[in-house]
Parts: sequence; C-alpha cells; structure tokens
Amino acid sequence: MSTEGKTITCKAAVAWEAGKPLSIEEVEVAPPKDDEVRIKVLYTGICHTDAYTLSGKDPEGAFPIILGHEGGGIVESVGKGVDNVKVGDHVIPLYTAECKECKFCKSGKTNLCGRVRTTQGKGLLPDGTTRFKCKGKDILSFMGCSTFSQYTVVSKFSVVTITDKAPLEKACLLGCGITTGYGALTKTPGIDNSTVAVFGIGCVGLSILQGARAKNCSRIIAIDTNPKKEEWAKKFGATDFVNPKDLPKDKTIVEYLIEMTDGGLDFTYDATGNVDVMRSALEACHKGWGVSTIIGVAPAGAEIATRPFQLVTGRVWRGSAFGGVKGRTEMPGIVEDYLNGTLWVDEFVTHTQSLEDINKGFDDMHAGDCIRCVVNMGFPKEDQKE
Amino acid sequence: MSTEGKTITCKAAVAWEAGKPLSIEEVEVAPPKDDEVRIKVLYTGICHTDAYTLSGKDPEGAFPIILGHEGGGIVESVGKGVDNVKVGDHVIPLYTAECKECKFCKSGKTNLCGRVRTTQGKGLLPDGTTRFKCKGKDILSFMGCSTFSQYTVVSKFSVVTITDKAPLEKACLLGCGITTGYGALTKTPGIDNSTVAVFGIGCVGLSILQGARAKNCSRIIAIDTNPKKEEWAKKFGATDFVNPKDLPKDKTIVEYLIEMTDGGLDFTYDATGNVDVMRSALEACHKGWGVSTIIGVAPAGAEIATRPFQLVTGRVWRGSAFGGVKGRTEMPGIVEDYLNGTLWVDEFVTHTQSLEDINKGFDDMHAGDCIRCVVNMGFPKEDQKE
Repeated sequence: MSTEGKTITCKAAVAWEAGKPLSIEEVEVAPPKDDEVRIKVLYTGICHTDAYTLSGKDPEGAFPIILGHEGGGIVESVGKGVDNVKVGDHVIPLYTAECKECKFCKSGKTNLCGRVRTTQGKGLLPDGTTRFKCKGKDILSFMGCSTFSQYTVVSKFSVVTITDKAPLEKACLLGCGITTGYGALTKTPGIDNSTVAVFGIGCVGLSILQGARAKNCSRIIAIDTNPKKEEWAKKFGATDFVNPKDLPKDKTIVEYLIEMTDGGLDFTYDATGNVDVMRSALEACHKGWGVSTIIGVAPAGAEIATRPFQLVTGRVWRGSAFGGVKGRTEMPGIVEDYLNGTLWVDEFVTHTQSLEDINKGFDDMHAGDCIRCVVNMGFPKEDQKE
Repeated sequence: MSTEGKTITCKAAVAWEAGKPLSIEEVEVAPPKDDEVRIKVLYTGICHTDAYTLSGKDPEGAFPIILGHEGGGIVESVGKGVDNVKVGDHVIPLYTAECKECKFCKSGKTNLCGRVRTTQGKGLLPDGTTRFKCKGKDILSFMGCSTFSQYTVVSKFSVVTITDKAPLEKACLLGCGITTGYGALTKTPGIDNSTVAVFGIGCVGLSILQGARAKNCSRIIAIDTNPKKEEWAKKFGATDFVNPKDLPKDKTIVEYLIEMTDGGLDFTYDATGNVDVMRSALEACHKGWGVSTIIGVAPAGAEIATRPFQLVTGRVWRGSAFGGVKGRTEMPGIVEDYLNGTLWVDEFVTHTQSLEDINKGFDDMHAGDCIRCVVNMGFPKEDQKE
C-alpha cells in the first residue's frame, strides 16, 4: 500500500534536550511539500558533529531535534517540482546542498550553496517548517538531513541519486566524513606528487590519506597522539607516522616536521578541530608555497592565530567544508571511485548498531578503536527497496 | 680616473644606534669581491621599513648600519663571476634577491630566494663580511642594499639592470613600495574584473589600487582613516573611499563592506601592518571564495587571529613579500609598465631631500601629505653616469 501523500509513523532517535541520550520514539513524518523529497533511511553513520550538537556545546544547537547527517536510503515519495530524483532512487542526503542556481553555485568557486542555508541553520526546511512531530510537538530537522529517523524529508537540493550498485550500508558514510577528507585533498590545486601531512587520523584524516595515495603524493605523513592509529594510517596510504607525544624533548612538532621534510610540507591538513593543531599545521608548511587546509570544526568561540610573517613568507591558510565537493554534481564520481577501489569505504565500518542501540554507537565512537559506527535503521532486507 | 678595484671614500647616512637621527659621514666602501657589484647610488626613497629599523622596534635590527633599500644607481664596478650586470648599467638593488638556482627560485611558486637570506638577515654580504667602514668600524649592510650611501656593494643576485630610459630619480621607488603593491595585486590569480578592497592608502596601498585599475577590477574600495587620502585614492583608481571613522555607529567596517558589496569582496589587501586591520580585511572577504593578502609588516610579536570558520567557509588568508615579484626576471616588465603609463611612479614623489637633509625626509614621511620622499645622493647631473 503506497504511503505517498500520507503521514508516515515510524521510529526515530529523538534528541529531546542537550546532554541526554537519544530517545527511540514513534514519530510522524509528514509527506513532502513542493520541492521536497521523503527518504526511507536504511543506514546512517554517527559523526562527531552529531555528538557535538547533542552535547549542547554547539551554540546554535536547538532541541528537540532528530540528528544524523550521514545517511543512505531510498526515495519514498517526492513533492511537486522535484525532477532530480525519483521514487525508488538510491540516494544520499546532502547537508551541503547544491541548487545549481544561486550566486555561490554559479560562481564555479565554491561548493557552499546559499539556497537552503538560513532555514537549515534553524532546523527547518526551506519553507520555514518541519515535517517531524512526536508526542504532539514539532521536532527540528538537523543539517537538512535528520538521518536518525526511518523516514526523513529533505529539500530536493539536499539529495543526490547514486548508483544502486553501491551498498547503502557502506555508501551512507559518503554523506560526510569520507567525502570531506577525500575531497579536501583531491580537490586541492597542485596536489599531485607533493608532500603532505595530515593532523588527526579519524575518519576524515584517513580519507585525506586515501586522497593523497590516489594523487601519488610522494610523502604522506600522518600525525596523531594515539599510537593505535599508526597501523590504520599506514594501511590507508601514510608513508610515515608521527606521534607528537614521542618527539625528542627539545623539538616541537613544527620543528620536527620541518626537519623531516627539509623545509616543511607542500600541503598540510587539520582534521582535529583543535586550534593549536591548526597553527602547527600552518607553520609546518614550506616557506614560499606551503598550503594548510582547515577541515576540523573548532569549539565555539575558539580562534586560530599565527604571526602574519608566516603568511607574508608564502604560506597560505585556507579551509574546506564537505571536502569542497558539490554534492549533486560530484557525488556520483566519488561513488565511482569507491566502486573501482580507489576510495576505500567498507574498511571504515568498525562498528554497527541497531537503531534501538544508537546510543551505544555514540559510546563506540569515543572508543579509540572505532572509525565509524553504522546504524541499521531496522528495515528487513526485503524491505530495503521501495 | 677609474675607481675599479679601489676603496671609495664617499658620503653616507650612518645609523649608529637605534632611536637616533642618521649621521652623515665619510665612509669607506671596499671594492666588490667575487659575485658582487658596486653601485653608485644616485637616488633613494625612504620607506617605513627604514624608519622601523631605525626606531629600534625591529628585534633583528643591528647597529651601526647603513639603511636604505629603495635605490636607483649605476654599476661602478663588478667582481669576478658577475655576468648579469656590467659597468655603466642602470640598476635597482633588490632586497628580495633572485639567484635562479636555489630550491625556491626553481620552484616556480615563490619569489623568496633562499640564496643570500641568512647573511642578509645579519647585515652582511654572502661571504659573511661587510664592505663598509666608518671611523675604523665595520658598518652593517641593510637588506642587502644599503642605499643611504653614495656607493654600495651588493650581491650579484640582488641587483637588476633596467633600461636607461627610466629616470632613476623616479624609478628608484620601484625598489620597494610601488612594486610591492602593484605586484601583490597584478600577480594574484583570478584578479581580473573582480571586486577589491585595499586597507591603508600609502605608497603600497596606492600601488595596489593602480594594479586593480590595470586589471580592470569592477569595484575598487580604498579604506583609510585619513580623509586626505580620498583624493589620492580616487586619482589612483579607487571607485569608492571608506573612512572607518565615519561609519554609522552600529556598523563595523566588516559589516559595512559586506553590505556595500552584497556579501563581501573577492579580494582584499592589507597595507597597514596592523593585525586588527588584517583580520577585518579577511573577514570582509566574500564567503566561498574571498582571498585576503597581507602585505604590511606587523610589529614584532603581533599575531593575527580569526575564527577558523572564516576559512572553512571558503575564505583564503595569504601574504605577499615584494609583491611576489622576482626582481631580476620581472622588474624590467614593471619598468615597461611605468614607461608606457600603466603604472604611475612620478606622482608618488611628493617630497625630495638632499643626502645632508635625509633626516628631514624621515619627518616628511610621517606627515599625512607625503607619499614618498626621494633623496638625491648629491652627484651633479653630469656625474650621473659611469
């Protein structure tokens, strides 16, 4: 029996308030309005950004909300005016939308679409409302995605169809961390055959390493204070691993890296979100041409700093969001890289949980041996199609 | 009678110690050693960097020293191994050397030559000694140039021949500020037809404006707290002038510029050396693609800061030294731009002084109506040739 046009009642993990575990609830998901898409979410990753907002440290975090932004699913129904996806498509929701029409999309210089930004930041769909209700209350949407619900409604600009050859229980991870790291590196101009250092070897950092491997970088230095990450880093392409805790006492990490590379790195990437590490990443760049890219999200109010001399002598400080990837245009190519073996995704899934146990997934994430925990949203295999 | 191979006794302005006026002295200038060039300096500009070092605020400043780095002169003699300039050539000394052989020069990515850097920073020529003596004491060389002397000796990597069609009493200014500003803008990738804001309308700032005019920038906003600069700015290409002191009370300069440009500037340049202004220049950039270039020299120990979010959302923070110009390779082209009228130089000379009155030139510089003071080193017109 078709659910098109009807409100769907399903399970979701609701964040009622900051600092509390998620609560598995029955929620009502209204049908998509014009230019909206309702998605049956089959799998979702759990990302540090979900934990950050849940913790209450995000000053823009509002509650109650359905978190999750790293999902894979199938289009259940579409509103009027939707022509970029159709019912039955395998899709990935995009927290970085792409309308292809706004000043940003048309600039050819950025993947930061301006179209849904304001409402998304408020936890709403572009018309200023939400499609979720629970116990009579409106529940906010998260990053335009809300993948911690069995069904979610997103803007048509916030979703991309991918080939159904890609298993969604893995490909869901392309919705955030992997693409963020892989894109940040592979889309850096002049990156081929250069020297690279990556600070922070989590999901994003490992994906940067993979990008460096794909771009034939001549030296790929992974940096992390957790010694367990060495094996992971080398598996994903690092030629060297440096643990800042193991340095000679008279050397800073910057001095050590500059010595190790005869002057500094061509490119460095911060995937830690720590502003002191961001500074080290910049200053470990080679004078004259080194480029440092900030990817990690810093705590609210934290600032980066350096002496301007670092820039005047030729270092460049930049950043990247969602790897600089235009989701609707470029995600199919990234899925292609996954399917042809250039980009490893399966290896990231170190933990799995059911929707009921999603809070355990948050605990998993904070364990040192976890890269990604994927949550199975609970549809039987035979229902994993429209 | 040829002076080749002999020590020359001539006049120079010696800085005996920090914070004191320069002292006009008879100095002995030894002949050039291998790979060195002795130059008869006809004219020199006075730059804020000279004043900064003289003030004692530069932690690397050492004394006694002969300052000056914005000169024009004629080659008097050359040491063995010099084949890039010859006796009688009209030349400009280069504080940013170009050896064409080091890692930096060969990278194709920077104008920061590594060849003479270490000794230059110590006030010495590449062999670790100085050619100046006064009252029996060795006098240090400044920025590899020391143009406040009637004769100076520089490394062959620190000098470029220019056409003798360019009058040296004006072209000397191409040795620093004008080239720094003009190069910083014109060598910025993607600058054509874009929107630009320039903070600080001195010699460097005006030269940035000229670059923007040459590159057909669609909007060129000049920013200075001195209202007298408006006329200058508009003469040199600014389409708009903003005085941060005249803003509505509820607006910061960043907010004002973002509103004025519907989202921010494509490119901004700091030519103030003030780290707070550097921050404003970055944050006034357009989200997604704005690029801010630091040119000004900040006080020792000062740091720039911003929220990393500014970079993650697509702004780029970079810097430029000597306008990114490779002196030996590119200066002839800049002189060409001067001679064909694209780059105005004559207009910068608002004040002139004799060598005897060089201290008055420092006073001139601090007056609001001075752009550049050129010092005539005192050779009669008929001696202004080899």
